[in-house]
Amino acid sequence: MGNFKTYIDKNKERFLNELFELLRIPSISANSENDPDIKIAANSIKKHLLKLGLNNCEICETDGHPIVYGEKIIDQNLPTILVYGHYDVQPVDPLDLWDQEPFQPYIKKTEIHPEGAIFARGACDDKGQMFMHIKALEVMMQDSGLPCNVKFMIEGEEEVGSDNLEIFVKNNKNKLSNDIILVSDTGMINKTTPSITTGLRGLSYMEVELTGANRDLHSGHYGGTVANPINILSKMIASLHDSNNKITIPGFYNKVSEASNDERKEISSIPFNLDEFKKSIGINAEHGETGYSTIERQSIRPALDVNGIWGGYTKEGSKTVLPNKANAKISMRLVPGQNWREISKLFTKHIKNITPKTVSVKVTEHHGGEPYVAPTNTVGFKAASNAYEDVFNLKPIPTKDGGSIPIIALFEKELESKSILMGFGLDSDAIHSPNEHFGVSNFLLGIETISKFYHHFTKLSKG
Amino acid sequence: MGNFKTYIDKNKERFLNELFELLRIPSISANSENDPDIKIAANSIKKHLLKLGLNNCEICETDGHPIVYGEKIIDQNLPTILVYGHYDVQPVDPLDLWDQEPFQPYIKKTEIHPEGAIFARGACDDKGQMFMHIKALEVMMQDSGLPCNVKFMIEGEEEVGSDNLEIFVKNNKNKLSNDIILVSDTGMINKTTPSITTGLRGLSYMEVELTGANRDLHSGHYGGTVANPINILSKMIASLHDSNNKITIPGFYNKVSEASNDERKEISSIPFNLDEFKKSIGINAEHGETGYSTIERQSIRPALDVNGIWGGYTKEGSKTVLPNKANAKISMRLVPGQNWREISKLFTKHIKNITPKTVSVKVTEHHGGEPYVAPTNTVGFKAASNAYEDVFNLKPIPTKDGGSIPIIALFEKELESKSILMGFGLDSDAIHSPNEHFGVSNFLLGIETISKFYHHFTKLSKG
Repeated sequence: MGNFKTYIDKNKERFLNELFELLRIPSISANSENDPDIKIAANSIKKHLLKLGLNNCEICETDGHPIVYGEKIIDQNLPTILVYGHYDVQPVDPLDLWDQEPFQPYIKKTEIHPEGAIFARGACDDKGQMFMHIKALEVMMQDSGLPCNVKFMIEGEEEVGSDNLEIFVKNNKNKLSNDIILVSDTGMINKTTPSITTGLRGLSYMEVELTGANRDLHSGHYGGTVANPINILSKMIASLHDSNNKITIPGFYNKVSEASNDERKEISSIPFNLDEFKKSIGINAEHGETGYSTIERQSIRPALDVNGIWGGYTKEGSKTVLPNKANAKISMRLVPGQNWREISKLFTKHIKNITPKTVSVKVTEHHGGEPYVAPTNTVGFKAASNAYEDVFNLKPIPTKDGGSIPIIALFEKELESKSILMGFGLDSDAIHSPNEHFGVSNFLLGIETISKFYHHFTKLSKG
Repeated sequence: MGNFKTYIDKNKERFLNELFELLRIPSISANSENDPDIKIAANSIKKHLLKLGLNNCEICETDGHPIVYGEKIIDQNLPTILVYGHYDVQPVDPLDLWDQEPFQPYIKKTEIHPEGAIFARGACDDKGQMFMHIKALEVMMQDSGLPCNVKFMIEGEEEVGSDNLEIFVKNNKNKLSNDIILVSDTGMINKTTPSITTGLRGLSYMEVELTGANRDLHSGHYGGTVANPINILSKMIASLHDSNNKITIPGFYNKVSEASNDERKEISSIPFNLDEFKKSIGINAEHGETGYSTIERQSIRPALDVNGIWGGYTKEGSKTVLPNKANAKISMRLVPGQNWREISKLFTKHIKNITPKTVSVKVTEHHGGEPYVAPTNTVGFKAASNAYEDVFNLKPIPTKDGGSIPIIALFEKELESKSILMGFGLDSDAIHSPNEHFGVSNFLLGIETISKFYHHFTKLSKG
């Protein structure tokens, strides 16, 4: 195993330029107007894989956005790593809160990234992190070559639920067969504390629409006589949490695996400073379920949030309207034990139950995914741990992530292999937010760590 | 007093064409982008007044949108009628619910208006009704001439609170001196039952903005640990009504004049069919303050409605964002006894009191106006009653309107004269809503009734 660092340092500028090119493509999967950009991004990934000499490179069409596939099988007796990532990105609203154009990447120093960070939508989630895997292949090939087989599967619908990847995986079990799945779409504890994500929350993303009268009404002539869907929706949303901030949907907690004392003790040992957390996002007081710490609330406890709400007149000035519709996008983060389709059903049933007869309701399921847990006693985990130790001189801490990568639980079920979640992003990187960024050193250390992983994994698998 | 009807019938097409021209101007006072259209509308009104031979016609500039003034003083010893109306209109959102372009007027028959109705934003509120007064002048002039003096004051900020008209009135008391103010900006009970509005609710229109974190957050990483401003705002809005749909703001009802048994008895005698009401707006069940009838709730009781709410991701698809802001436009309709500035203060204080420390709040006052009551034993009321009887062969019923014309209470205070609210719109005309319209016969009968009023008022004032 050679000195990857020297090669990375020497080619750093080019690596960044290549990533910038990818970041300039506004491949927002949620907006159909960006469909052409999705295709451009998929093609760009394919070109990178071809250039690295991967075989069977193809753009696999789906009913939605395409999946890019490529592989390099050097020896059937060697282990196979399946790399998963996504080239699609989150929408950019609210656009006016970005310091610069979200698809015009640039580097700026920050307090946390004094060496500079890459600012752009997708810089961290997931173009930047996915691209580390492409560059790690190049690094290994320029050195002693790949130590094992590799397959790449990069999708374009992660931010909208990976529905078509699910079908693709089910239909291509042989093609995708592997010994370990490697994913960089999570974070590390802080700039100097590496971590491996061993748990992910599940997700159920729903939409509720209330309709009152057959048209918007004048709030003077009708105010006080007709149910206002916004007032009603507010009341319904308010009722979804009790005074302890527990979710009130009947049956919601029935199957939640309660954390053991040991597990809670382990969590409390993770370096976490509540004051720093509050400072980093500018809040005066934390908020959440009574009886749990902030780090527990964001990892081992479920949550329910309104992701968007709209109704009536929302522009400049005033309009005395009593609107006839109110809408909300509401999502729930789930923990082991909970099944997202079951939770979606419980949600739908409950919302219908609490809708008063003065309005009608429509509940729509957007998408979802199961929670995920990974053991720490596997070859994959040990190889990752060694790789981090090589690069960071520190053993990584196993952590549970509050986010969801819906497809990870499915991989386990369909491909019968575990995923190693080697994330290099930071909480402060503002993924899904304006001014998303990714530390330049995180990007480069990521490439190095991934390259090391291939060697450790091959070695430990043989042993 | 001649046969106005013949002249009106003969010139009907031209009257409608002239109104259509006015309706084509998108003079939305709430949108600054329509400022040029506001000026075009004001100029158009001025031209009409000039053409009728009114004197001292001018466009009076204000800090906001201009006021159009014109007068015809034929004899200082005769009474003077001040006509008030507005040329500005409500915004048109949601645009996709209009059957045709809101500023491309057209005539279509409806169940309620079998002779046809004029469809356009402003058709009824208030361009159509205001224009009846301009055409009534023409009708009288083509007949035996004006029987008394007239002053016109047509403003462009009624839909955004008439702030600058207030200043104009205070600064021009002599110029505006009059014996009666005539306004058509209200409705009649139904197509065949004329009514005179003897009460208007007041208004306090507020906006609330909650801010949580310093940026939008990823709902996976932060969900469950940080206050979500939308969830908090929903809770706050929900708490503004109790289980009897009474408003919970402390002190809100303190000064409300409770209706006497006689007044409630009088209200219950107004022809009102709850089933027809429900059918007309397509609702299954009415909603409102316990202990009051629908017609009471919309006239003599105050109300609180959210007119608009927004926050987070509101477009197509899904975005797993925990937003850092949530906003609502909330307005209250007020009844005699309540003072709008006092209510705005109580609202602001209460909202601040119930905001948890996990978020910060900003409360803004948009505008407001006092409630209004008019006696029925005045010369003005009698003259109006006679005019309606001449045209409809029915005595008009005095009614209280749930809407607000904030300036009417101010006129009484500053100009020391009462307003006669001769409205010809119907509840079903969808003012402030998509597909606003105004019955062609309502428009024509309005012109005739107004013309008759001048003669009755002059005669009764002399007597």
